[in-house]
Amino acid sequence: MNLLLFAAEELHRDDLLHLAGRRARHVRQVLRAQPGDHLRVGQINGQVGFAEVVELSGEQVTLRCSLDQPPPPKLPLTIILALPRPKMLRRILRTVAELGVAELWLIHSWKVEKSYWQSPLLAPEACRRALLEGLEQARDTVVPELHLRRLFKPFVEDELPAVRRGRGLLAHPGSARPCPVDLDGPATLVIGPEGGLTDYECRRLEEQGFEGIHLGQRILRVETALTALTSRLFAPL
Amino acid sequence: MNLLLFAAEELHRDDLLHLAGRRARHVRQVLRAQPGDHLRVGQINGQVGFAEVVELSGEQVTLRCSLDQPPPPKLPLTIILALPRPKMLRRILRTVAELGVAELWLIHSWKVEKSYWQSPLLAPEACRRALLEGLEQARDTVVPELHLRRLFKPFVEDELPAVRRGRGLLAHPGSARPCPVDLDGPATLVIGPEGGLTDYECRRLEEQGFEGIHLGQRILRVETALTALTSRLFAPL
Repeated sequence: MNLLLFAAEELHRDDLLHLAGRRARHVRQVLRAQPGDHLRVGQINGQVGFAEVVELSGEQVTLRCSLDQPPPPKLPLTIILALPRPKMLRRILRTVAELGVAELWLIHSWKVEKSYWQSPLLAPEACRRALLEGLEQARDTVVPELHLRRLFKPFVEDELPAVRRGRGLLAHPGSARPCPVDLDGPATLVIGPEGGLTDYECRRLEEQGFEGIHLGQRILRVETALTALTSRLFAPL
Repeated sequence: MNLLLFAAEELHRDDLLHLAGRRARHVRQVLRAQPGDHLRVGQINGQVGFAEVVELSGEQVTLRCSLDQPPPPKLPLTIILALPRPKMLRRILRTVAELGVAELWLIHSWKVEKSYWQSPLLAPEACRRALLEGLEQARDTVVPELHLRRLFKPFVEDELPAVRRGRGLLAHPGSARPCPVDLDGPATLVIGPEGGLTDYECRRLEEQGFEGIHLGQRILRVETALTALTSRLFAPL
C-alpha cells in the first residue's frame, strides 16, 4: 500500500480521518507510524496528498489530511477482456488499476465457461476492492470504470460502436501486424480468453473496425499479455 | 500448459514417452486426449514438435514424440533483480521464463529482508519448477539461467562487469530518462526491491555504467514492472 485511500464521506470536520481495521493495522504494523509522522493519502476519485498522524489509540488511528495534488493521469485506453477464470480475476483487476487503464469491460465469449459468471469474486464490492488495491499500489485515486456484459453478440453489435474510443485493436496470436508502440491517441483493445477468440468472434470485431495485432510467438497468460500490450501501446505517464 | 515438457532422459527408444502424475492428469483431464490425438510437446533445452497419444492405461499415458522445430528465440536481456518476497517469487520466475528473458540474477540489497534467503521456495527444484511452468505457458523449452548472489557489494564490484551484456539499465523511480523502446542490441536491466534501491546502491551501479530509467509516476509491483520494462525494451519475437 503506497497510498492510503479513503472515501470523501469518511472525513470529519473537513480533514480528520478515523481509521480502524485493515488500514489502521497497516499504519501501525507495516508503516509503524508515530504521532507527527506524515503518510501519503488520497481521496477516492479525488486528490492525493499527505496526512499527519494525530493519534494512535487502541485499534484506532486518527489522521489529519491535506490534499493538494492531482492523481496521476490515466492512459487513454479502454480494455475489453473476455471474462478470465475467477482465480485470475482479482489480480487482473488490480493490474488494470495499477497500470492506469481508464475503463474495463468484461465480456462473454465462446471459450469463457458460463460458470465463471456465477463467481462471488464478480460481486461489485469484490471487484471494487481489487481495483482499490491496484490504486493503492500505484498511488492513484480514480477507480477505473468497470462494466460486465454477459452476451457477446449484442455487446459487439449494439454497444461497441459507442464504447470504442480511438483506434480499435484486437490482440490475437497469428495476426499479421505486431502490436504498435506509443500511440498518439486513445485506443480500445480487445483481449480474448485463455483459449483465444473464435474465428466468428474475430470477424465480428473486424467488421467493427478492430485490427488484429500480435505479441510474437509466445502464448502469454492473460495478465502478462495485458501488461505487455498496455506497456507497448502507451508510454507510461 | 500450452506445451508438454519432458527431459531427454525420459525418452524410451528415441521417441516414446511414458507419463504419470501431473502431466498425465493434464493430458487426460484438461486436454481430454484420446489415442491418435496430437499434442504439442517440447524437450527441455531442446526442440518442440508434436506427440501422438499412443496409449492411455490406468494412470499412465504413452506418447510418441516427433520434434522438428526450434523453440522461440530468447530476448537478449539479462535481468538482475533484488530478491522479492517469497510469496511473489514463483510468479516472478514464471513470468521471466514466459517472456523469454535469457538470464536472471537474484541479488541481495539493503531493503531485502535477510529472512527471504531462507525460503524453501529458493531451493533449486522449486525455482526450476516455476521456470518450467513459464516455459510451458509460452511454448518455450530453454530454461533461463538463474543465479543467486547473497552479497550486493562483491557482486556489483567483482562480478557485474563480466555478467553485464550490452547496455546497462537501472529501473529507478525518479530517474531522468524514461525507459527506452525497442533496443537494437542486448541489455542488462537492474530492478530494485519493493522499497527501491538505496542511494548508495544506485551510485555503485551508476559507477559500473548503468543508466537510470523510469516508468512514469506510478509505483508498480515488481512483477508488473518487470513485464512492462521488458515489453518496452524489446519487441516480442
